[in-house]
Amino acid sequence: MKELETFPNPSPNRRYIVEHINSEFTSVCPITGLPDFGTITVRYIPNEICIELKSLKYYFLEYRNQGIFYEDVTNKILDDLVAACDPLEMEIISEWSTRGGMNSIITVKYSKDKNNQDIKL
Amino acid sequence: MKELETFPNPSPNRRYIVEHINSEFTSVCPITGLPDFGTITVRYIPNEICIELKSLKYYFLEYRNQGIFYEDVTNKILDDLVAACDPLEMEIISEWSTRGGMNSIITVKYSKDKNNQDIKL
Amino acid sequence: MKELETFPNPSPNRRYIVEHINSEFTSVCPITGLPDFGTITVRYIPNEICIELKSLKYYFLEYRNQGIFYEDVTNKILDDLVAACDPLEMEIISEWSTRGGMNSIITVKYSKDKNNQDIKL
Amino acid sequence: MKELETFPNPSPNRRYIVEHINSEFTSVCPITGLPDFGTITVRYIPNEICIELKSLKYYFLEYRNQGIFYEDVTNKILDDLVAACDPLEMEIISEWSTRGGMNSIITVKYSKDKNNQDIKL
Amino acid sequence: MKELETFPNPSPNRRYIVEHINSEFTSVCPITGLPDFGTITVRYIPNEICIELKSLKYYFLEYRNQGIFYEDVTNKILDDLVAACDPLEMEIISEWSTRGGMNSIITVKYSKDKNNQDIKL
Amino acid sequence: MKELETFPNPSPNRRYIVEHINSEFTSVCPITGLPDFGTITVRYIPNEICIELKSLKYYFLEYRNQGIFYEDVTNKILDDLVAACDPLEMEIISEWSTRGGMNSIITVKYSKDKNNQDIKL
Amino acid sequence: MKELETFPNPSPNRRYIVEHINSEFTSVCPITGLPDFGTITVRYIPNEICIELKSLKYYFLEYRNQGIFYEDVTNKILDDLVAACDPLEMEIISEWSTRGGMNSIITVKYSKDKNNQDIKL
Amino acid sequence: MKELETFPNPSPNRRYIVEHINSEFTSVCPITGLPDFGTITVRYIPNEICIELKSLKYYFLEYRNQGIFYEDVTNKILDDLVAACDPLEMEIISEWSTRGGMNSIITVKYSKDKNNQDIKL
Amino acid sequence: MKELETFPNPSPNRRYIVEHINSEFTSVCPITGLPDFGTITVRYIPNEICIELKSLKYYFLEYRNQGIFYEDVTNKILDDLVAACDPLEMEIISEWSTRGGMNSIITVKYSKDKNNQDIKL
Amino acid sequence: MKELETFPNPSPNRRYIVEHINSEFTSVCPITGLPDFGTITVRYIPNEICIELKSLKYYFLEYRNQGIFYEDVTNKILDDLVAACDPLEMEIISEWSTRGGMNSIITVKYSKDKNNQDIKL
Repeated sequence: MKELETFPNPSPNRRYIVEHINSEFTSVCPITGLPDFGTITVRYIPNEICIELKSLKYYFLEYRNQGIFYEDVTNKILDDLVAACDPLEMEIISEWSTRGGMNSIITVKYSKDKNNQDIKL
Repeated sequence: MKELETFPNPSPNRRYIVEHINSEFTSVCPITGLPDFGTITVRYIPNEICIELKSLKYYFLEYRNQGIFYEDVTNKILDDLVAACDPLEMEIISEWSTRGGMNSIITVKYSKDKNNQDIKL
Repeated sequence: MKELETFPNPSPNRRYIVEHINSEFTSVCPITGLPDFGTITVRYIPNEICIELKSLKYYFLEYRNQGIFYEDVTNKILDDLVAACDPLEMEIISEWSTRGGMNSIITVKYSKDKNNQDIKL
Repeated sequence: MKELETFPNPSPNRRYIVEHINSEFTSVCPITGLPDFGTITVRYIPNEICIELKSLKYYFLEYRNQGIFYEDVTNKILDDLVAACDPLEMEIISEWSTRGGMNSIITVKYSKDKNNQDIKL
Repeated sequence: MKELETFPNPSPNRRYIVEHINSEFTSVCPITGLPDFGTITVRYIPNEICIELKSLKYYFLEYRNQGIFYEDVTNKILDDLVAACDPLEMEIISEWSTRGGMNSIITVKYSKDKNNQDIKL
Repeated sequence: MKELETFPNPSPNRRYIVEHINSEFTSVCPITGLPDFGTITVRYIPNEICIELKSLKYYFLEYRNQGIFYEDVTNKILDDLVAACDPLEMEIISEWSTRGGMNSIITVKYSKDKNNQDIKL
Repeated sequence: MKELETFPNPSPNRRYIVEHINSEFTSVCPITGLPDFGTITVRYIPNEICIELKSLKYYFLEYRNQGIFYEDVTNKILDDLVAACDPLEMEIISEWSTRGGMNSIITVKYSKDKNNQDIKL
Repeated sequence: MKELETFPNPSPNRRYIVEHINSEFTSVCPITGLPDFGTITVRYIPNEICIELKSLKYYFLEYRNQGIFYEDVTNKILDDLVAACDPLEMEIISEWSTRGGMNSIITVKYSKDKNNQDIKL
Repeated sequence: MKELETFPNPSPNRRYIVEHINSEFTSVCPITGLPDFGTITVRYIPNEICIELKSLKYYFLEYRNQGIFYEDVTNKILDDLVAACDPLEMEIISEWSTRGGMNSIITVKYSKDKNNQDIKL
Repeated sequence: MKELETFPNPSPNRRYIVEHINSEFTSVCPITGLPDFGTITVRYIPNEICIELKSLKYYFLEYRNQGIFYEDVTNKILDDLVAACDPLEMEIISEWSTRGGMNSIITVKYSKDKNNQDIKL
């Protein structure tokens, strides 16, 4: 997988939120081989570096023909983006288009502060 | 009733939220025999295992010709899904279509942590 | 006024929320004699018994030709429903249609637990 | 300015919320002389008395040809209504129509309890 | 850059919120030279002075042909407006139009009280 | 039934359209005795006289406790209003709230010109 | 199949439109055995008789566990309703919920006047 | 009343449509003295001259404290604007805010071509 | 390319409309190699045979990794579907997601009747 | 002004509609020097050649700092695009953001067929 590009956080002394919403995500169901379509939201509080937007778009494109489950891909995106930019906090939300009358949403969260890793319904 | 299928949680060390929204639920009113239509939302924090989506769809289909009240069916779905996947937390919300100018919504919640079982208006 | 019918709570050991939304409420303004139209939301956490839905619909119908103010009717509905089902918590919200360019919303709340009766803007 | 009429709170022993939304407010910009249009929301927890609705409508009408700034008029309405009904809590929100591609919203709040007067972004 | 005009806070003893939403912001991408379009929300609790609205509109217009990144411009607007009016608290939210199927939102926050500068996802 | 008041058409030499939409119509189902709720649209091209708006509101109020079917009431309103103002053309549309998952809409039309009385799906 | 009940057209001398929209239609896919959900719109110009609404609701309920294709069921409903009430014109529109990212809409039309049976895209 | 300013049509040889929508119109009810609020749409095909937009805004402002009925004001605006710019065709639509649960819409039309002055429901 | 499957029209003697809307179409831009996303609407009046829905879904999937322009793909879908089912009339509408602030819609139409092949803006 | 690029119509024998909607158009008011924002819709039936989309985007960018009136710019875009691609028919619609409570929409149309150049309200 290509490396995600980054750039130095222009305001490293201020906690603030960056949110990128990709409404054109698509991957493939590993069982049926049929495409899945979703919206992926990336929200994070940058530490020393930020994720470069065009590079993020190309990162998402690599899933286009890859077979992967909803829960897997959401956790994997979080792992990859945390590895790429070492954020203070990060949240990934994947919302999937209707299949058989059902919609799924997966929400995963990371915090550099180990005392702050809870998530609630 | 058929057994609900499950699969191992791909990220058992991270608390995260899985949400499945079934907008095509239907059962039967036990008094009038007329069909009820609703949207059932299942939200949970998985523990060791996750609920398999197709199996969940077939589970819901078994209510199609069953006579059952709003409050009953919502509590029963929570009991069945908790028994099937032993989640850390789970919430079921059922929203019902208009009957005589009135809409009903039932919200039930479970937590494996006995100190965290409160629910508020 | 007719008695409100009830039925035993099918899950008395679990705190959960029941919500009934009546979008066809109408009463009469006691000053002008003109009809008022509103949506009444009943949200409660049942204790030992639940309110029967059809009976609730007939209860609301008794206001159709009764002259009563917004604040009065909302408080009275709360008093009547609390008396009928002795809930753990209950909230009544009445939202009224436009009169002279103005809309009104009244929100009243009850808690069996006397330490939990606060309400905030 | 005309006096605001009031009536005794029908449930003085219960904390509850009254909300009146006037979507037809208009005043005049003191600099350009051009009209401003807004929606004024009054939300309060009544103490001993409530504000009479028709009287409130006439109170708002007195601003129709008056030159006054957004921040001023919102604070002034709060002062006038607090003086008129001595509420436990009151909040005024004014939302203004687009001017030069910009919309403004002013939110002011009062609490009789001096320890409860904070407001946060 | 032109100076931002201000006026004395008409209610300096009351904490309240002023919000200005500019839905016609545009600047230029420093890499491609193509225009970016966004909505900028300024929310603050005034201290001694308020920002004059027309002056704020002209301040935003100075970005029309300036090349600047999303994260940079949002932090810079916060720095400039804090310098101009010394608020108790201020928040800037920039929401950007779709580029390559992706939308971005940046949220930055300032508090005069150094113990209140946290921000959460 | 009270008489509908009218006033002279201020522009009798110009064909133009007047439309009044009553979103607070209610009558009673003659079989169940339960209330029906609807929106009644009156559209007409006035001839010599126009229908006075307040009088029209009071006319609609007379149906509040009257038992009448959807098709009947729509045709009756057209007959009454044509008799009251002798319009060049008139159309009545009644849209009814959901009953058992079904909504009904009735559209009836009148034209003084006998060659222009057709209506199409 | 049960007989559809009718009643005499209250205004047989006036051409007018009756529309009933059933947003709770469900049948079964004859191939997969899985339920289909749809909205069925019945629009017609009555001749001598009208379709009774409750009877129509029970007619639709008979499809609940019947296997039938979209095109078939729409044509069959038109045939049955034309046979039941001999209308001047009738149109049936069936709109189906999403299956595999696709939605279907079928529109069929009948006219007693053989010269008026065309339909266009 | 102030004169409406105009400017030469920049494309007098091409038939095209100009539409100005004023969503901040207000006048006064001649009976109650209470304000009316409306949206006025001006649509026209210019002939030799066009209406200047700022001048049109000031023209509408002159109704702010004038008592006038819905039907009157709509016809009067058409007469004034036709007199000001002699258009090939012009249509005025006034849509009024809710009064007693009722909304009104008035549509008037002018055509320089006397054979083209019809209007239909 | 796979063959499109069909089935006999169940009502060949009646002109009626079949519409299939695929909101999950994706192909690839032949210049940039980046994916395009669109909604494809197929509307037709069947002749002797209808297009089988599942087969249509698989037909659309074959474009997933194919480089093709908006105008080309829309015309090609029409050609392929006309060849597959020989309809009386058919219309294809492709609506594409935002690229650089711009959205495109292509509408193509076929009629077996050579005198009916016009299309208008 | 840069030349608009074109490409050969891939289906020159079929009349079909191409529509490009630019929701990020901006120019400058020639009187105040303040920016105007609009949505420009280009709809046309191509003849021998089509307009290249990226080239169209750059064409619109040239208006960014140009002072021009609503009516002028809409007519000029039509003239330029007709000159560039010689279409069978073309329509330009410009919809402008709110100024002083007013929105404007300009609609201009061209037809190569001189007998088909009419436009109606």
